Amino acid sequence: MPTSADFSFQVTHAQGAARSGEFVTPHGAVETPAFMPVATQGTIKGLSMDEVAAAGGRMVLSNAYHLYLRPGDMMVRALGGLHAFARWDGPMLTDSGGFQVFSLAKLRTVGEDGVVFRSHLDGSLHEYTPEAVMRIERNIGADVVMQLDELIAGQADRAAARSAMERSLRWLERCRAEFDRIARDGREPLGLTMTDAVLPDDLPSLLPAEPERERVAPPQALFPIVQGGTHPELRRASVAGILASGDWRGIAIGGLSVGESKPDMYAMLELCAPIIPATLPRYLMGVGFPDDLVEGVRRGVDLFDCVAPTRMGRDGTAFTPDGKVQIRKGSHRTDKRPLVEGCGCPGCTRYDRAYLRHLFVSEEMLGLRLLALHNLTFLLDTMRDARAALRAGAFDTWSSEWLARYRGAAIAAR
Amino acid sequence: MPTSADFSFQVTHAQGAARSGEFVTPHGAVETPAFMPVATQGTIKGLSMDEVAAAGGRMVLSNAYHLYLRPGDMMVRALGGLHAFARWDGPMLTDSGGFQVFSLAKLRTVGEDGVVFRSHLDGSLHEYTPEAVMRIERNIGADVVMQLDELIAGQADRAAARSAMERSLRWLERCRAEFDRIARDGREPLGLTMTDAVLPDDLPSLLPAEPERERVAPPQALFPIVQGGTHPELRRASVAGILASGDWRGIAIGGLSVGESKPDMYAMLELCAPIIPATLPRYLMGVGFPDDLVEGVRRGVDLFDCVAPTRMGRDGTAFTPDGKVQIRKGSHRTDKRPLVEGCGCPGCTRYDRAYLRHLFVSEEMLGLRLLALHNLTFLLDTMRDARAALRAGAFDTWSSEWLARYRGAAIAAR
Repeated sequence: MPTSADFSFQVTHAQGAARSGEFVTPHGAVETPAFMPVATQGTIKGLSMDEVAAAGGRMVLSNAYHLYLRPGDMMVRALGGLHAFARWDGPMLTDSGGFQVFSLAKLRTVGEDGVVFRSHLDGSLHEYTPEAVMRIERNIGADVVMQLDELIAGQADRAAARSAMERSLRWLERCRAEFDRIARDGREPLGLTMTDAVLPDDLPSLLPAEPERERVAPPQALFPIVQGGTHPELRRASVAGILASGDWRGIAIGGLSVGESKPDMYAMLELCAPIIPATLPRYLMGVGFPDDLVEGVRRGVDLFDCVAPTRMGRDGTAFTPDGKVQIRKGSHRTDKRPLVEGCGCPGCTRYDRAYLRHLFVSEEMLGLRLLALHNLTFLLDTMRDARAALRAGAFDTWSSEWLARYRGAAIAAR
Repeated sequence: MPTSADFSFQVTHAQGAARSGEFVTPHGAVETPAFMPVATQGTIKGLSMDEVAAAGGRMVLSNAYHLYLRPGDMMVRALGGLHAFARWDGPMLTDSGGFQVFSLAKLRTVGEDGVVFRSHLDGSLHEYTPEAVMRIERNIGADVVMQLDELIAGQADRAAARSAMERSLRWLERCRAEFDRIARDGREPLGLTMTDAVLPDDLPSLLPAEPERERVAPPQALFPIVQGGTHPELRRASVAGILASGDWRGIAIGGLSVGESKPDMYAMLELCAPIIPATLPRYLMGVGFPDDLVEGVRRGVDLFDCVAPTRMGRDGTAFTPDGKVQIRKGSHRTDKRPLVEGCGCPGCTRYDRAYLRHLFVSEEMLGLRLLALHNLTFLLDTMRDARAALRAGAFDTWSSEWLARYRGAAIAAR
């Protein structure tokens, strides 16, 4: 694979299943375990990329489904690729958008070839095949791109879970073939399909000066996704199938945090992590909440992503070491303390709980911003502390105490 | 008046009616002419105070009506006053909220004593008298506080305009008496009326350690408001009445930009400015748009405020030297140029029009933030440039060229 040299992963410290290390991409390195802030549409909801970087964010995630529909993957490419478009110079990952096709799109029809669906924006008809998704993610240009997989409900029965898992493996082979073909042959010519490049007279053309050179795909890594629901033997078969089908730079664990119980999720992690080669970063998709991250690291996960910090923040819910806090609560009305003592985010260093509550009760946008940034900071800080504990050989104690405080206080506050 | 020593105004350069100078308040000085960003509920919509300060904002405006209803003026005072609550150390002004009582509140009844109205938030019954408004603004603690005045429609007939103007003068006398009485006797005791100070057990009391000392009002200046609609003789009578009734630190011109024509507004400014002593700052309330500011400075205005920059920004409209731009327009889809070449705001230095349009089309909050901050930056920069032109003795040329470009290009773009 021509991309291999641009990616590496080095585990430097380990304790039990937990480990810390460094994942290197063409846009720089990220220390693991790491939480990846989610920039679904090429922007992290409510926040600027500068704020996210200042909070310690090193690798961000975007979504191919959303960018394909708007502004279009060809348009993102014509504008310089997603790194240039969104002004993020660091490592970046795109999810294929398979999850969004299954959760947002209308009238979808799933077949062996792919998924036909109607856009949730305008009802227009689209087809997502493994090959089409690779072309889209190659145009968007993130460092890590995810395969297209078939998704099922968290509690799906064995037959449905097996069928989707096996199809996802077949789709992985097709993704890999197209991904490699584009690395070899280059991307589609920009001009021919870019129907939207109607430029005002006074603007320079977006068409590249050197069209053949522009077609060369940037170095990227394709990550497969382990599926199989909550069925141990399907998860095992999924990992085996993935390992048999190629040489990967990292492996994702998907289909969790979609409705199954927490013990089921943890059991699947305990099963998958040991059979994924220790030399590869493990990425747990769509997780999560602060305690899920710590539990995930304990079970060998290196990368996480989730919209929870920004979504909860917009809703007025703040993460604290003592559990979640709803800032609208009347008891904060006269509370001149910071949201979290010692937190370095602007919401905690500049304002008090009384003012943050006032912003939420008054429906002021600054409140949403401050709590979204606080929650993101909290997850990034938690992963930073986990890395430090791993380097110090103190992860077991640290994580046990962290979880006891987070959960104990949360229960005491009821 | 015990507050006089804490305020001063010095005109350093003048050209025609236009002048530049410095208005000093207990929280620092503001160079004039100046635009005051509006923090209606103690926060500038979508932005942090740090962003506003970095953009060059020096004096901000808040609203007594909104803060009286939520979180309550006594609560703001108990939390340290609005400067501490909103973390703004610079000069600050509160509008009385008379305009909001007339535009937002329900079922209002106006009489000689004041206005009885129902809150737009919960329908609760309130009474705004000149004395009550002074007590509220004394509790909130801004440097400059506005009198309560009676508002009328921009096109009100002479009889209605005369009646409101004369009542506003009588209310000014009552405001002044109560404002001075509080300076002499102190504010109401905090504890007795602060029914909301029910604190959780683990929080220190908000009641002051030295209650008598806490009652001492901070140094503030009361500004009267010139009324009279678009009727020259009423405006003259209003100014005369104000000047006859006391020694002021600044005078506001109200009741403009409320539906009257632009020529009518300019005519009223040309009439009022020369008969207001040149030693006092002139504050044109609720204005405005970029060209209104330049036209106002030409006519001797020193201070402006308006929600237009943030409101227009949230709506996708950006101020530029060549007129207004609607960022959602399709022609920006492929436009890699900054919104305004040379503008120092984050939206212009970090992003291109194509990305800003993407944010708006995708309904992403970052777009609102960036355009609100850009528009505010544009007004603050315009006033900075006006001051520089005045200091250089080049204001006539500068303002003519500025207006020709702003309006000419705006017409050409139709």
